[in-house]
Amino acid sequence: MEIEIATIGGYEEVGRQMTAVRAGDDIVVFDMGLNLSKVLIHDNIETEGMHSLDLIDMGAIPDDRIMNDLEGDVQAIVPTHGHLDHIGAISKLAHRYDAPIVASPFTLELVKGQIEGEQKFGVDNDLVEMEAGETMDIGDDVELEFVNVTHSVIGAINPVLHTPEGAVVYGLDKRMDHDPVIGDPIDMERFREIGREGEGVLCYVEDCTNANRKGRTPSESVARSELKDVMQSMEDYDGGIVATTFASHIARVKSLVEFARDIGREPILLGRSMEQYSGAAERIGAVSFTNDLGMFGHRKSVDRAFERIMNEGKENFLPIVTGHQGEPRAMLTRMGRGETAYDLEEGDKVIFSAGIIPEPTNEGQRYQSEQLLRMQGARIYDDVHVSGHLRQEGHYQMLDTLQPDHLIPAHQNMEGFSGYVSLAESQGYEVGHDLHVTSNGNTIQIVE
Amino acid sequence: MEIEIATIGGYEEVGRQMTAVRAGDDIVVFDMGLNLSKVLIHDNIETEGMHSLDLIDMGAIPDDRIMNDLEGDVQAIVPTHGHLDHIGAISKLAHRYDAPIVASPFTLELVKGQIEGEQKFGVDNDLVEMEAGETMDIGDDVELEFVNVTHSVIGAINPVLHTPEGAVVYGLDKRMDHDPVIGDPIDMERFREIGREGEGVLCYVEDCTNANRKGRTPSESVARSELKDVMQSMEDYDGGIVATTFASHIARVKSLVEFARDIGREPILLGRSMEQYSGAAERIGAVSFTNDLGMFGHRKSVDRAFERIMNEGKENFLPIVTGHQGEPRAMLTRMGRGETAYDLEEGDKVIFSAGIIPEPTNEGQRYQSEQLLRMQGARIYDDVHVSGHLRQEGHYQMLDTLQPDHLIPAHQNMEGFSGYVSLAESQGYEVGHDLHVTSNGNTIQIVE
Amino acid sequence: MEIEIATIGGYEEVGRQMTAVRAGDDIVVFDMGLNLSKVLIHDNIETEGMHSLDLIDMGAIPDDRIMNDLEGDVQAIVPTHGHLDHIGAISKLAHRYDAPIVASPFTLELVKGQIEGEQKFGVDNDLVEMEAGETMDIGDDVELEFVNVTHSVIGAINPVLHTPEGAVVYGLDKRMDHDPVIGDPIDMERFREIGREGEGVLCYVEDCTNANRKGRTPSESVARSELKDVMQSMEDYDGGIVATTFASHIARVKSLVEFARDIGREPILLGRSMEQYSGAAERIGAVSFTNDLGMFGHRKSVDRAFERIMNEGKENFLPIVTGHQGEPRAMLTRMGRGETAYDLEEGDKVIFSAGIIPEPTNEGQRYQSEQLLRMQGARIYDDVHVSGHLRQEGHYQMLDTLQPDHLIPAHQNMEGFSGYVSLAESQGYEVGHDLHVTSNGNTIQIVE
Amino acid sequence: MEIEIATIGGYEEVGRQMTAVRAGDDIVVFDMGLNLSKVLIHDNIETEGMHSLDLIDMGAIPDDRIMNDLEGDVQAIVPTHGHLDHIGAISKLAHRYDAPIVASPFTLELVKGQIEGEQKFGVDNDLVEMEAGETMDIGDDVELEFVNVTHSVIGAINPVLHTPEGAVVYGLDKRMDHDPVIGDPIDMERFREIGREGEGVLCYVEDCTNANRKGRTPSESVARSELKDVMQSMEDYDGGIVATTFASHIARVKSLVEFARDIGREPILLGRSMEQYSGAAERIGAVSFTNDLGMFGHRKSVDRAFERIMNEGKENFLPIVTGHQGEPRAMLTRMGRGETAYDLEEGDKVIFSAGIIPEPTNEGQRYQSEQLLRMQGARIYDDVHVSGHLRQEGHYQMLDTLQPDHLIPAHQNMEGFSGYVSLAESQGYEVGHDLHVTSNGNTIQIVE
Repeated sequence: MEIEIATIGGYEEVGRQMTAVRAGDDIVVFDMGLNLSKVLIHDNIETEGMHSLDLIDMGAIPDDRIMNDLEGDVQAIVPTHGHLDHIGAISKLAHRYDAPIVASPFTLELVKGQIEGEQKFGVDNDLVEMEAGETMDIGDDVELEFVNVTHSVIGAINPVLHTPEGAVVYGLDKRMDHDPVIGDPIDMERFREIGREGEGVLCYVEDCTNANRKGRTPSESVARSELKDVMQSMEDYDGGIVATTFASHIARVKSLVEFARDIGREPILLGRSMEQYSGAAERIGAVSFTNDLGMFGHRKSVDRAFERIMNEGKENFLPIVTGHQGEPRAMLTRMGRGETAYDLEEGDKVIFSAGIIPEPTNEGQRYQSEQLLRMQGARIYDDVHVSGHLRQEGHYQMLDTLQPDHLIPAHQNMEGFSGYVSLAESQGYEVGHDLHVTSNGNTIQIVE
Repeated sequence: MEIEIATIGGYEEVGRQMTAVRAGDDIVVFDMGLNLSKVLIHDNIETEGMHSLDLIDMGAIPDDRIMNDLEGDVQAIVPTHGHLDHIGAISKLAHRYDAPIVASPFTLELVKGQIEGEQKFGVDNDLVEMEAGETMDIGDDVELEFVNVTHSVIGAINPVLHTPEGAVVYGLDKRMDHDPVIGDPIDMERFREIGREGEGVLCYVEDCTNANRKGRTPSESVARSELKDVMQSMEDYDGGIVATTFASHIARVKSLVEFARDIGREPILLGRSMEQYSGAAERIGAVSFTNDLGMFGHRKSVDRAFERIMNEGKENFLPIVTGHQGEPRAMLTRMGRGETAYDLEEGDKVIFSAGIIPEPTNEGQRYQSEQLLRMQGARIYDDVHVSGHLRQEGHYQMLDTLQPDHLIPAHQNMEGFSGYVSLAESQGYEVGHDLHVTSNGNTIQIVE
Repeated sequence: MEIEIATIGGYEEVGRQMTAVRAGDDIVVFDMGLNLSKVLIHDNIETEGMHSLDLIDMGAIPDDRIMNDLEGDVQAIVPTHGHLDHIGAISKLAHRYDAPIVASPFTLELVKGQIEGEQKFGVDNDLVEMEAGETMDIGDDVELEFVNVTHSVIGAINPVLHTPEGAVVYGLDKRMDHDPVIGDPIDMERFREIGREGEGVLCYVEDCTNANRKGRTPSESVARSELKDVMQSMEDYDGGIVATTFASHIARVKSLVEFARDIGREPILLGRSMEQYSGAAERIGAVSFTNDLGMFGHRKSVDRAFERIMNEGKENFLPIVTGHQGEPRAMLTRMGRGETAYDLEEGDKVIFSAGIIPEPTNEGQRYQSEQLLRMQGARIYDDVHVSGHLRQEGHYQMLDTLQPDHLIPAHQNMEGFSGYVSLAESQGYEVGHDLHVTSNGNTIQIVE
Repeated sequence: MEIEIATIGGYEEVGRQMTAVRAGDDIVVFDMGLNLSKVLIHDNIETEGMHSLDLIDMGAIPDDRIMNDLEGDVQAIVPTHGHLDHIGAISKLAHRYDAPIVASPFTLELVKGQIEGEQKFGVDNDLVEMEAGETMDIGDDVELEFVNVTHSVIGAINPVLHTPEGAVVYGLDKRMDHDPVIGDPIDMERFREIGREGEGVLCYVEDCTNANRKGRTPSESVARSELKDVMQSMEDYDGGIVATTFASHIARVKSLVEFARDIGREPILLGRSMEQYSGAAERIGAVSFTNDLGMFGHRKSVDRAFERIMNEGKENFLPIVTGHQGEPRAMLTRMGRGETAYDLEEGDKVIFSAGIIPEPTNEGQRYQSEQLLRMQGARIYDDVHVSGHLRQEGHYQMLDTLQPDHLIPAHQNMEGFSGYVSLAESQGYEVGHDLHVTSNGNTIQIVE
């Protein structure tokens, strides 16, 4: 059976991921993501009403015109998890394919939100829920399996396509977490079986985000332990404490909620995306934030919440807000500018439970947000966080576990791939033979 | 009562700490440390047989000739904890003073070791044990108190000199740890009392090692959590695993010992300083590594231990060895060079549970050690560690707690002080008035 | 005679410089500058119509209320050169003092521009022109002298106050340039004399901008040589070339103009500040850009210039434009956004003859500007530049030349001072004695 | 005609360059270099007496066993210039091939030195001198041409193999210098012709050393201008001045010699490699250091020279010595350790006219050397230097000039290639198609 892999997006940068695997006549598409920074560099652009081709020209969504060259039918569109760089182009591209969108419950919930917000296209692909551990037939001879993995969002899976030639494992995005706070640990046992059974692993596509970093990415339980330590150190403080994190990072939000209560404060989620993601997590039953946890997204209800906090005393609350990257319109940035009712005072604490995305525009915005907070007297606790992506020793362990015949580094540019290529070469792979260093818009013939 | 503080060593660099406080006619000396890097830049120098003045000329030990200018009698020499930059010059300088050495049990045990190793001078000062929480009279009107603090070595205290003019708090070295794995949490309650009682705090000398770093130094429990995560991820590995850390960091050694057993391996301490420090900790009862924990320091017994490991199978052991900075003669470096019986193989794991001391010579040695280990196939897990020194938010909390009249930044050079000076200025202190930015060999008159 | 120095602004940051020296009953004020970044962090603020006190509260201009504590009369206000951080607050503060503004011709020309643009205050201090090498009596016993120095703007001098107690040398801002392209070399011979004559140098205030950088700041002739090399390498290119630099850096603008002609292109200055500074330089006769050099500042005339360039062929021109830091409204940024008639094409060259001011907000803007240019195909030549400030070996040479009794580091924060303090200490100065590490709002009594 | 390129060494690291091009039955080998760092990490190894296979196993010289797979005869071995990473393995590998060594006069002179020093192998290949601009037949249908390029050593050429399928241009190592101080500018005119004539350029192998650096590498004339500025600033100094640079960098040595005389000092070359390289340059007539320029390499004659300098007065000399990287046994390091008769005093100047090779071991040694010099009072002027390798805009210009069908990045590891790959992709090349990202030991079939 011919096996071909089209590396459509996300092989020259982080963002707008899209990969297609053709096995015989059947094609499965993994991820359809957005590269938001390509949008933001232009002033005043709203993507909701834009046409796909314009977004392709901007480099914001994958250029899927290469799909015409693959001879076969798309049988499924499979987003691996709910981050925008993996699902953000579904509303712009999925309607072109007569295929269901197959995803884990939380991811599917977020895909629904994307489709509802879309103004240009009507997207009516079937939405099929599939849990980690389950499988689905793709044509006659191929099977799609979801293996449970761990990442900075719940509901992440690695899809595996079982073909007569061996398994194709699409490894985006994950870290190796044996104690992930919410949900099950990464299913290394299943990966080990896949490495050994049948024809073994034909091809492995790897998440190279952290491929240039040594060592092992710590577990979410380590971030939780650090966050606990930070918040305990504030137990005696009787002024304001504010926290921010990725709204989609439900496990982190859960830790913040719990530790807030441990130190006698009422947690309260503020900001549109806080409400969206945590609401989605509640709907699928991943968390049961009890009824008294406020979540407010709309401007007016946020304003009312801030007023209530000021009235009842800042010392009784932990607002958990958007703005961890200093985004100009996010809640924390507005607090820094004094545009909310929340009054920051000398000594008040702000916890950034997030890393800084290393891009100069972003670093500038984040710096400016911190400066504004400091000008009001805030004390900053930054980088209380661990990454959601494997580092080199995780990559080594995956190679050791799967023993793949072919490797395709993904989710980075060439510089980002370099650490992975060095690792793979040290394990006997060769560029141009079984180690496919590629870029957007290419097709790799694995089995002819 | 006149109060004067002589900043003798450690105010232009990290290393060779020494500070004297004169209260009326009585003087207490805090720390007498060594700056090892000033020795190592010269080839083939052994300090044991060297004279004090030569070591002073090299910048290796404090230039205590300034003590002649202080009009009073030294009543006590008080090392705050057992690191060499705080006790390493006792054997060269203490005999000049007719005063006891007063220290916590673990620190005193290490001071004894220093004195025994000395070849040039006979040091016969009284050795007086004093626990955290205890006090001692200094002359008629002054009292010395030990407040329990937390650092990367056990037995650390902050000495406080209670004078009629207020308390002088000597704040070297610490982090603020509420869950330190061994021993009690930092005694913030007592610091709060000292800040409020009597005349309050007259002067505070602060450890500025990390004064340019934002946020809070995590607790040892966070390092423990990360170490646990790293070692659990190796549970299924059936080859060699080796760990290295600071020999004096008993809490970390304890965690390594425990997690080794958790993953079914026998821990074994190898290297001269591993034996010394852990032996000292056992003698004072801080740990009770059960009888079956091997500790080997002498070359021959280390060699025998490695042979036993190879005979019984590397997969059954966790050697915990010296060499975390790539020191040329330390155990791990020798393993990298293939000079021990321990056979490193492709895939074997090496855990550096230590940070890299940021100095180019050191960074070069550490890099070279890693290269040698990698050439034999080792996988490196580095920086599984947290620092033992306060960062900015810890400094802020200490200021808030003690509300001192005067501040003296210490344990750094001018660049290192800068973050602390900025912080202090933002809290209303002024350089030249109540914020004393100073250097080695100065005397600051606090009360005339 | 009592000598007192008030360090009013620019001793905790770069920007808003102001220092007053009192010699007996007479006071001279050096510099009155603006810290623009304190303004820009707020949205939509125009300083022209703002009151001094509001600008002081923002940290944008020096807090000169401390001047009330100096017992004496201000006899002169002396801006050392025309950069905004040295003259930008004159229009907000000078009218409070009954004293002339004394400056070199070019600096004075720029001060006039500032005063004309002011909308809130009427500033009618006398404007007195004084050349390097000239002197002026201040009261009966004191003399003010201008020594020629070299900086990244023409007309820079170091004022020296000759008092009966020795000379007070105000050393901001300079590098040591023996071949400065425009104007005379730094007058080291005169500094040597000042160091030796009479009572020698009582006090030296030093520009510490680059105090943490090793080595020597190269001459403007080295930047010229590099710029020549860059432009010669483009000689055969037949598309667009654009250059940007500091508008006030007349020597650099001159080099750009000359090399443009060398490679057969017509230089043309575009942007409001390009017109202002080069116009001022022409008026005082520092340059004679012949009549055919276009300078356009107003939007409409700039637009026409771009249209002419496009009509006559980009290959015939070198636009020299504003925007070297990526300022959002500057000319080059607008070109990157496609908001001008100038059509950037694949392969066109953009020369940044300027360094990046190392502040995250700024770095983000500059990065974004470069990204926009690259998106249009531009090739970037960045950092074709040398700094205008002394590095460590220049500082060493000044110390060696002047042999001052007292030192005051300026034009940085504490971290920035640290390299200078280390240098001074290595030369025998002591913090708290003759090395005055200070901050804004302090007064240092040099002679009582 | 089949064209095949074997990337034998230097495609995973800087060092041990070797590339073979097969055109039909004829093979030409470009470079045979040494990776010295692979030797130095082992203690006490002397390569002179070592066997090739041991050096191959260490990764010190290219693994040329892959040459057996190329079906054809080696017709020439062509070192492109005289640096060790390009000629250092000739004495270990060339005797295996029945082919002449063809090189420019200076390179050939250095190759002779290598061969004479070799103790293990007898190397008796013919040595053929060929100047830039000349050509040589290789078999019937292929011609070898030398194009003049500019690098940090004189005598550098880029060999071009003219085949019926187009030209193969081997682009290692160069910068684009239009004013190189010694010798002719880079021959861009000839490159332009090669790009246009016949079949154009089939394949270009590029030097990626600086591929991740923006902008353009300055000309040697810029380094000369900076060096002149530094030395002029020392004109009045009446103590010791010492300079160090790459011994092979004859243009830089020449500038040092000339500027020494300009400031009234006698230059004198000290250290074994200083004597060797400058001697070789004199022999081929590239420089005519007049008879009174002392060059001393042997220990005794160096010692005598230092004694003479001290006797006649340091202020009359400029020793130009080895040791720019802090190599432990080099002359400058020995001066820092006080092991020579030259007495460094407070204020003496040391000029490092060289960059630091960015590798931690090296950085540690260099730092230590500087520390030792500073401990004796020396003032350091570092990095008075420009690189010899193209940066991104040079790469862009070469692509624009040659318009090659295929590209092979070389002289780096994968991370180092990344900037070049991004550039090439932006110009329409595709990895896996016409952009060959490869590693050591591969063969690329360009024409089948």
